Amino acid sequence: MTYCLALRLDEGLIFLSDTRTNAGVDNVGTYRKLHLVHAGEDRVFVLQSAGNLATTHEVLDLIDRDLNTPGDHQSLAKVNHLFEAALYIGELSRQVVKRHREGLATVGADATSTFILGGQILGDRPDVFLVYPEGNYIRVSDTRPFFQIGETKYGKFMLELAVHNKVGLDDAVKIALSSMLSTARANLSVGPPYDLGVYRNGSRKLGEHRLEEHSETLAVLHETWLRLLTDAIDQLPPIHVAE
Amino acid sequence: MTYCLALRLDEGLIFLSDTRTNAGVDNVGTYRKLHLVHAGEDRVFVLQSAGNLATTHEVLDLIDRDLNTPGDHQSLAKVNHLFEAALYIGELSRQVVKRHREGLATVGADATSTFILGGQILGDRPDVFLVYPEGNYIRVSDTRPFFQIGETKYGKFMLELAVHNKVGLDDAVKIALSSMLSTARANLSVGPPYDLGVYRNGSRKLGEHRLEEHSETLAVLHETWLRLLTDAIDQLPPIHVAE
Repeated sequence: MTYCLALRLDEGLIFLSDTRTNAGVDNVGTYRKLHLVHAGEDRVFVLQSAGNLATTHEVLDLIDRDLNTPGDHQSLAKVNHLFEAALYIGELSRQVVKRHREGLATVGADATSTFILGGQILGDRPDVFLVYPEGNYIRVSDTRPFFQIGETKYGKFMLELAVHNKVGLDDAVKIALSSMLSTARANLSVGPPYDLGVYRNGSRKLGEHRLEEHSETLAVLHETWLRLLTDAIDQLPPIHVAE
Repeated sequence: MTYCLALRLDEGLIFLSDTRTNAGVDNVGTYRKLHLVHAGEDRVFVLQSAGNLATTHEVLDLIDRDLNTPGDHQSLAKVNHLFEAALYIGELSRQVVKRHREGLATVGADATSTFILGGQILGDRPDVFLVYPEGNYIRVSDTRPFFQIGETKYGKFMLELAVHNKVGLDDAVKIALSSMLSTARANLSVGPPYDLGVYRNGSRKLGEHRLEEHSETLAVLHETWLRLLTDAIDQLPPIHVAE
């Protein structure tokens, strides 16, 4: 499975993805699910994916081919707004699924992928979209400034709790990490390394950081989060139960 | 939906259930899902349920009828061990589902319920069982001393984190509540009042407490938990992201 999340804040955007893939418990792998697409100086696109890994890879290759092939076809270099990029990716995704549906149906596999697309085309505000396998999309709102894909339930509480527009980027990174750590703790199909992307409005570049599986940073984060949570539970007021 | 959980600890057992039921968002109700069954001085049975509410009610009525009707049929007064009680409840559950399967199939509804059965028959150790709709069961273990039914994902992290055999009953109540509060915050289909049951080994009686929806106790718990969690996230070490 997968857990990816993205947040839109007043100062910028946060992206966080795990890297675990599995096709059965005896076939577990590590693949990057956070992708930065270079499509011009005036634009930044970040793509996160959940679902069929082969579909994701083919969509990424088609995006790349469209960018590097001359002609009047659509590409991420030519779209004028982020919502057009979302529609373009949705269309590629549907094409790929259509191509492989018959082949995959014979083994009962699902060919679909769901994408989070975030970024900025200068002139527009930075934004985050959820692109459905059906090719349509929704965008975050001020009252619900995050999207999650994959194993969304385990870490939803932290996002519900703490995310609003007034949180700064540094605090939002902590919120995202607390959600990821909680998910990975409860579900073996989500795991490190974790890819973090931070986009500051107008900067036209993505700050990236990979939290490696056996790194000191991740070990400290993990240990600290467990201790803080345990302390928090411990500090809850006692409930008196009559016997 | 529903969220019920039960824990087995060295000192005793903890049960916590929400009360929200829904048959569509326009048909939301409040029903007790934690049931204490009186079947004799030497035994305590606590039953929690998730799934089809009508099936649950019919199973409870059958348990009651078997207890109050003379004869040599099985009942919770006659079983010698908790696992026999689990099998008996599993059998009742299958009978009820069988009776209504055809009727419910016409509207595509699922007739099944899943039960958590906990308690003690004196002479045996207190225990907790999960009774599947198929009529079979599993029991908790020392390394996994809890069961959850219903919306199990949102609050799993707190249980994974903090539950082990050495936790006392008072701390286990806090763990259970943190799991319930987090679930209800993230999912509207789980909500108060919450029914808490605490069984101290050998006591042959269940301490019960209902956390009412608009009670001061629940308001303080909720507010405290949100504040503690927010503080915990805030105290995570910062991650430096190169830009």
